[in-house]
Amino acid sequence: MSTSLMTDLYELTMLRAAREAGVADRRSVFEVFVRSLPAGRRYGVLAGTGRVLDAIADFRFGEAEIAHLRALGVLDPDTLDFLSGYRFSGTILGYEEGDLFFPTSPVLRVEGTFAEAVLLETVILSIINHDSSVASVGSRMVTSARGRPCIEMGGRRVHEEAAVAAARAAAIVGFAATSNLAASQRYGVPAAGTAAHAFTLLFDEEREAFAAQIAAQGPGTTLLVDTYDVEAAVRTGVELAGPHLGAVRLDSGDLVAQSRLVRGLLDELGAASTKITATSDLDEHRLEELASSPIDSFGIGTRLVTGGGHPAPGFVYKLVEREGADGLMHPVGKRSENKSTLGGAKRAFRLGAAGTARAELVLPSAAEIYEFERELMDELDRREASPLWTEATVRELQVPLVVDGVRVDRRSPAEQVAHARARHAASLAELGLDADAGPDGEVAIPTITDGRLAAAVLD
Amino acid sequence: MSTSLMTDLYELTMLRAAREAGVADRRSVFEVFVRSLPAGRRYGVLAGTGRVLDAIADFRFGEAEIAHLRALGVLDPDTLDFLSGYRFSGTILGYEEGDLFFPTSPVLRVEGTFAEAVLLETVILSIINHDSSVASVGSRMVTSARGRPCIEMGGRRVHEEAAVAAARAAAIVGFAATSNLAASQRYGVPAAGTAAHAFTLLFDEEREAFAAQIAAQGPGTTLLVDTYDVEAAVRTGVELAGPHLGAVRLDSGDLVAQSRLVRGLLDELGAASTKITATSDLDEHRLEELASSPIDSFGIGTRLVTGGGHPAPGFVYKLVEREGADGLMHPVGKRSENKSTLGGAKRAFRLGAAGTARAELVLPSAAEIYEFERELMDELDRREASPLWTEATVRELQVPLVVDGVRVDRRSPAEQVAHARARHAASLAELGLDADAGPDGEVAIPTITDGRLAAAVLD
Repeated sequence: MSTSLMTDLYELTMLRAAREAGVADRRSVFEVFVRSLPAGRRYGVLAGTGRVLDAIADFRFGEAEIAHLRALGVLDPDTLDFLSGYRFSGTILGYEEGDLFFPTSPVLRVEGTFAEAVLLETVILSIINHDSSVASVGSRMVTSARGRPCIEMGGRRVHEEAAVAAARAAAIVGFAATSNLAASQRYGVPAAGTAAHAFTLLFDEEREAFAAQIAAQGPGTTLLVDTYDVEAAVRTGVELAGPHLGAVRLDSGDLVAQSRLVRGLLDELGAASTKITATSDLDEHRLEELASSPIDSFGIGTRLVTGGGHPAPGFVYKLVEREGADGLMHPVGKRSENKSTLGGAKRAFRLGAAGTARAELVLPSAAEIYEFERELMDELDRREASPLWTEATVRELQVPLVVDGVRVDRRSPAEQVAHARARHAASLAELGLDADAGPDGEVAIPTITDGRLAAAVLD
Repeated sequence: MSTSLMTDLYELTMLRAAREAGVADRRSVFEVFVRSLPAGRRYGVLAGTGRVLDAIADFRFGEAEIAHLRALGVLDPDTLDFLSGYRFSGTILGYEEGDLFFPTSPVLRVEGTFAEAVLLETVILSIINHDSSVASVGSRMVTSARGRPCIEMGGRRVHEEAAVAAARAAAIVGFAATSNLAASQRYGVPAAGTAAHAFTLLFDEEREAFAAQIAAQGPGTTLLVDTYDVEAAVRTGVELAGPHLGAVRLDSGDLVAQSRLVRGLLDELGAASTKITATSDLDEHRLEELASSPIDSFGIGTRLVTGGGHPAPGFVYKLVEREGADGLMHPVGKRSENKSTLGGAKRAFRLGAAGTARAELVLPSAAEIYEFERELMDELDRREASPLWTEATVRELQVPLVVDGVRVDRRSPAEQVAHARARHAASLAELGLDADAGPDGEVAIPTITDGRLAAAVLD
């Protein structure tokens, strides 16, 4: 399916005007970044890059799309012809999916003619904003769960396609499984599930429902025990399944008190290996409150898939450099009140001794990069370190994703998720956050845009 | 494309267990409702019904879906066979799309066998939750705009498919247009747009950018005037386009002060007919603050498409009635702490004298409906009114949408939106809300579940 109409009208009218003015072919650089993180967030997590690359490959104007645009009556035949032949032929660099971002991190950089790059604004931002919103809160939840598995089950709370992308983003930040079958099909995310109250209510007695579930799925199944009376349900479950009942699910009431009561009861009944899983409006703050409760895994829904109070991280797509009438590239940036933009195509590095992150370095010009490299050389000399020291200390964050229209990475969708999951785990470990400090805090590392200030971080 | 895997795994494992226990064919009634409205919301707006009916028509398990389910290894061959032949053959009643909802309003009622109805839970809830979240906040925004056109431009802040559905939901609650081209293609929503800062920055001078835009789109275009200096840009725009410049857009800074300054300047320059449009993180509360500013239209993004702080209205899909071993239908409901459910297939009515709404009547049983009808007859006698009085006073809210698997309404997607838009306008007018009271307030009308209490409302 074409993604080319997942676009705001103004991108096409700007294209037309730029073409008629003869500037549509000016070489241009657009960058994707956020101006700030939401209050309380130490870091953001980039997700969606793999989906962006798929969407760009599908960004073609076929007959149906051209017919619709013609009917709108705002484009001239020449522009429609240009769109018929459209195929992105530029270059895209970006942070690896799953990596962290901070204010001004240039997580994606799109280079091409103005004409080919301006059209991608909406679809890129839709994907990066959505997927990163879920990944950013999901990463906090996994940390707050302190090693106990988290299962994504929020699909019913969001748009049916967003549900699939949310399950993918959750897997990237360490969720163990999803309830969403389409996500298991498309991205190889393990599928998991228990049973709903409707199942118990379908039967004349709860006992019959449990017996039917155990007969179909074996004693290792997870029984939902809060439809009528939790204690009675747990007793019935163990009686029917035996001491190797897989798990019971709690979905209401006071989970702290209930989980303790149920753990005691299970142990008393000889079902010491039976696990307890909890659901019901969980988020990272609730997980903190449940840290010492005897709950073995968590099913997490609404707060995850809706971005935990921050549904849109505020990624923007800005022209930062373009060819001028003189044929040279010029940094550009708007000067709007409260929304000004730092011009220049940027390179970004994460700094810190091996395995740690101490600063995000975002350098907006060749001059800044030169200054930074000189600082780095001086530091190398001063330490009498091997050149490997710089490799361990400076990680360049942008990698080539598309070069002259050709996608670099040929991973399958499932491999993309696995790769991003590993990247995320490694980048998060570099921050060295203390899980016991709770989910909220200041931005974990500063963003530095002046190459000469980098040395201070390395001292 | 099939929607059948937009489903949680547990729906299929419950299906298997119910089949093996011989109860999968029990006649069942599921209802979609919310337990409460978010604090401050006077009403909710139902949206997504048309999309639900499309999704149910596409809910088929083809070869790819069956192959995936087989590979998961949790279903037996008989259940896979059942799914291969699946086609919803039951009956669906529901509120008209665009109508209002209140706590416990049964906005959708799905009747069929347990097997065929249980599978639809996730896809129905995804659509209704998402679309209604946008519609519910969007309706408030339109009210707060007090007749000035609102344009939906939030697509870049949400999942790329959610963006299209959000534009559709916004159109239902009275938005004048959308920036999203896919929504204009699929649903006939008028497309609108201006220009981005990137367009101005592409040129060596702002003047050249404006000249190019006016050349391509005519003087009726909307110029974005805050890239560098607002006042200078307005002067340049009027100089180039003449006094019939269509509009200017403000996207940053203090919109109250800027709009006054720009209005004065435009008038001074003889461009009294040039409009001012404003964007920049608007929501219903900001619109209230701008009520007396000389702004002619609003572009609204993030806060609309992310549900205005309430991204998921909390719609649930609950089994409320099902056949028992005795062959009779029985109301059922879970008794979970803090989440109990009112059993029984419900009928719903909005009560009030012609053109007004005074209560939502949700009757959970035939007995309650009988009581209500008797009250109504008594009231009719007492008033010596014509039977038309009851028609004007009692509107039954659920209409048939699918009967024995056949969809009742054959409207095109664009006609669905137009119909829902009209329904919404009429239902909102019935509440008689005072726009000057601001967007927040108590729930507008009470929900009554006891038929004998209805008369009190009519007094």
